[in-house]
Amino acid sequence: MQTKKPSDSLTIMTEIVLPNDTNSLGNLMGGRLLHWMDICAAMTAHRHCKRVVVTASVNNVSFDMPIKLSSIVTLHAKVSRAFSTSMEIFIDVWIEDPVTGVKKKCNEAIYTFVAVDQHGAPLPVPNLTPETEQEKQRFDGALRRRQLSLILAGKMKPQDATELKALFV
Amino acid sequence: MQTKKPSDSLTIMTEIVLPNDTNSLGNLMGGRLLHWMDICAAMTAHRHCKRVVVTASVNNVSFDMPIKLSSIVTLHAKVSRAFSTSMEIFIDVWIEDPVTGVKKKCNEAIYTFVAVDQHGAPLPVPNLTPETEQEKQRFDGALRRRQLSLILAGKMKPQDATELKALFV
Amino acid sequence: MQTKKPSDSLTIMTEIVLPNDTNSLGNLMGGRLLHWMDICAAMTAHRHCKRVVVTASVNNVSFDMPIKLSSIVTLHAKVSRAFSTSMEIFIDVWIEDPVTGVKKKCNEAIYTFVAVDQHGAPLPVPNLTPETEQEKQRFDGALRRRQLSLILAGKMKPQDATELKALFV
Amino acid sequence: MQTKKPSDSLTIMTEIVLPNDTNSLGNLMGGRLLHWMDICAAMTAHRHCKRVVVTASVNNVSFDMPIKLSSIVTLHAKVSRAFSTSMEIFIDVWIEDPVTGVKKKCNEAIYTFVAVDQHGAPLPVPNLTPETEQEKQRFDGALRRRQLSLILAGKMKPQDATELKALFV
Amino acid sequence: MQTKKPSDSLTIMTEIVLPNDTNSLGNLMGGRLLHWMDICAAMTAHRHCKRVVVTASVNNVSFDMPIKLSSIVTLHAKVSRAFSTSMEIFIDVWIEDPVTGVKKKCNEAIYTFVAVDQHGAPLPVPNLTPETEQEKQRFDGALRRRQLSLILAGKMKPQDATELKALFV
Amino acid sequence: MQTKKPSDSLTIMTEIVLPNDTNSLGNLMGGRLLHWMDICAAMTAHRHCKRVVVTASVNNVSFDMPIKLSSIVTLHAKVSRAFSTSMEIFIDVWIEDPVTGVKKKCNEAIYTFVAVDQHGAPLPVPNLTPETEQEKQRFDGALRRRQLSLILAGKMKPQDATELKALFV
Repeated sequence: MQTKKPSDSLTIMTEIVLPNDTNSLGNLMGGRLLHWMDICAAMTAHRHCKRVVVTASVNNVSFDMPIKLSSIVTLHAKVSRAFSTSMEIFIDVWIEDPVTGVKKKCNEAIYTFVAVDQHGAPLPVPNLTPETEQEKQRFDGALRRRQLSLILAGKMKPQDATELKALFV
Repeated sequence: MQTKKPSDSLTIMTEIVLPNDTNSLGNLMGGRLLHWMDICAAMTAHRHCKRVVVTASVNNVSFDMPIKLSSIVTLHAKVSRAFSTSMEIFIDVWIEDPVTGVKKKCNEAIYTFVAVDQHGAPLPVPNLTPETEQEKQRFDGALRRRQLSLILAGKMKPQDATELKALFV
Repeated sequence: MQTKKPSDSLTIMTEIVLPNDTNSLGNLMGGRLLHWMDICAAMTAHRHCKRVVVTASVNNVSFDMPIKLSSIVTLHAKVSRAFSTSMEIFIDVWIEDPVTGVKKKCNEAIYTFVAVDQHGAPLPVPNLTPETEQEKQRFDGALRRRQLSLILAGKMKPQDATELKALFV
Repeated sequence: MQTKKPSDSLTIMTEIVLPNDTNSLGNLMGGRLLHWMDICAAMTAHRHCKRVVVTASVNNVSFDMPIKLSSIVTLHAKVSRAFSTSMEIFIDVWIEDPVTGVKKKCNEAIYTFVAVDQHGAPLPVPNLTPETEQEKQRFDGALRRRQLSLILAGKMKPQDATELKALFV
Repeated sequence: MQTKKPSDSLTIMTEIVLPNDTNSLGNLMGGRLLHWMDICAAMTAHRHCKRVVVTASVNNVSFDMPIKLSSIVTLHAKVSRAFSTSMEIFIDVWIEDPVTGVKKKCNEAIYTFVAVDQHGAPLPVPNLTPETEQEKQRFDGALRRRQLSLILAGKMKPQDATELKALFV
Repeated sequence: MQTKKPSDSLTIMTEIVLPNDTNSLGNLMGGRLLHWMDICAAMTAHRHCKRVVVTASVNNVSFDMPIKLSSIVTLHAKVSRAFSTSMEIFIDVWIEDPVTGVKKKCNEAIYTFVAVDQHGAPLPVPNLTPETEQEKQRFDGALRRRQLSLILAGKMKPQDATELKALFV
């Protein structure tokens, strides 16, 4: 299977915040953004492996900035690392000032997808070779995040998580 | 402000998986479930503090079990810990066998919400006193999760996260 | 087939009133609530009989109280009586005060569902044994309602509707 | 206020049954049809009185015929009787055979709407003068239905419902 | 195959403009109206030929008049001309004044549909015989529009478009 | 007002075809695509002028290729020419082969938008300077299309449409 680059899977999604997407303050609901990010990440994962893909997990996501009704929201997603049957996808979310057009990053999220066959059994996916500086950083971080999620799921012992352990000792 | 119990905020949401909620395997899309969990958690947080609430963050969520078209999905959510202006909410997701009716837990997620005023500024929320064994465990774990998210956000140094550090050394 | 209790089929659904659910006064449209009640009743009927179920009829429903945008609406539904192949379901609808949290009943509706096979042919359903005082009253009333609906459908003569006739003479 | 004819308020709505409108048998869900009928009746009531209108009640509705995915559903609604501030609306629902185009009536429902001001207070509506034979029958039946609904709501004593009582004695 | 009249395919669709259908000025979005017109035209084409139909093209549509939130929008569509396997459909869109009820035409659009079999291959459709003055004008115009669209698609040379050429020389 | 380039307004939208977007053949409905293209064009026009924009018209659109359920649909839109208060937007629609990932162009559409103030009155927009060969061709064609649409709307005499007339004589 041929190695892929992050740019091969780049997916750009642009959405307008409509009334039904907002909470009682008139801002985009967190759950709606999580939904958009999942769809965007699914297309990204599919572009990397050309298989049917399903969401395996979502990493910590924080919502720091309210996004107003009628805002234009742009999602940029790329595969950040491929494991044997799973892919980590990084999604950057941007909003733009309606008067100046200046884009501001408002969210960042990490989803993991698995390639599956007709019965839902995992399938191998191509490797990923990062190119830019940011892609390399995210590629390296993916290992630490994987260790953390294996620990949280009780599938790895903290002392075996070499990369992660280094943070604390 | 009066202390509340987790059962005061218990919210139960029941949904049927409709065609537009499914992926090309005919299973519930992860993003749709994330959206439902956000709405369920928002109502739970509101019931605890009686304020307008907004999503602050989502903890790690993993999707281990496919949920089929037409399934009945039940979400149970309770506040697991209250901090000064934020609340951690635990959501348990269940599906039931269509023939036997036996319920099986298929997901578990943790969202954090903040109470806000008309300008989006944070407001104080009531304390929480856990009652059952499970509520107490989740209450204790909330502190570790908070340390972890502060570290991931770069707002706390790993060596100050006493509770979390204990896991690794 | 084993007799069931009303509590075996209890279904709780919680919804937030979103902009697209409202009329030009900013209140929940009646039709949207009828839709939610139908979904809630369908899940209730399914939980009683573990079969595919379809809506057979809706009883008189009245809308006495406007429900505002962003309200939290809770539906509680239980089977109130089972006939050979059909089930009557009682749905109570509650809204809660956003400041005090006090719940107020705002609607009550009665739907009838039928259990069906793959071709839409009716299937037998388990009997129901009411337990609480309210369940017993609703169980008794179900017979009167059934007579009334048979008369309205021209399938029973008014003079044969013993229970109902007693009301008028 | 000028008297109106039923034909002045005639509203025709045509819908295609889409995947998300169907149950697990692939037929239109009852609740979705109730929603369409409510919207259709609201437009009809508005056309009669030129005021903002809100759903007051729904009469008995029965669902006798499954409506398949992709069916063309046509709703015809007219005001059947006007009371001081409320209007009764009759809705006839038709489906057509995809090959022959022959239309078959599949449902009939009766909704009541009230005209309201900005605060939700009732407003007077024009009288209705029925013209066709069917319109006259439905006009007459409206009084019986009103008595029945007043009795069911506990606002009229059975013995005062002269029209309705005649059915049983 | 029997010749049909335009009135055989008349389709009337009535919609209320809901919050999610509006742009940031609170007016109906053009794209939403295009969507409604496509559905209305699809039902019209189906009524003419009793086959599965798919959109082949949309003619120039202009949006001259804003349509406000909560407006009642009525679409009237009829087949204006039938070619061997395709049908041209004329859609007139009306809004009505909420106080006087006076209807005003706000849009007009022309869609073309093709009848297809299970594999998407075109099927013959019945001829159309126009009856009213307007139907005859639209029938004649259909030929000019077809020539124009064939030229724009590069499938006809401008000099062969006799009808259209007459406009310019 | 500063002159803009087409690339300044480039908008990329990616969508998955969900069940409710499809017709009875399981292919994307034309109207749904028209809706997506309108939203995509609206964001493009806004990026060019930084004003609220409304759809003025849609040019001829043809649908030549069925788009299957679950397809990934990518829309690329750029302003192709700016007039005093209006902008022409070109939208190219692509689908990709699920196995090879090869992208194929499946549609092309041209929408016109107008910049408006709070009362819907037109506002001036920046000029556009095309850069690439394709942008220049589309810029030139925009004048012909404008003449054609003015003629069709009865606002220009065919003999005054110099550019267009040249096609036929």
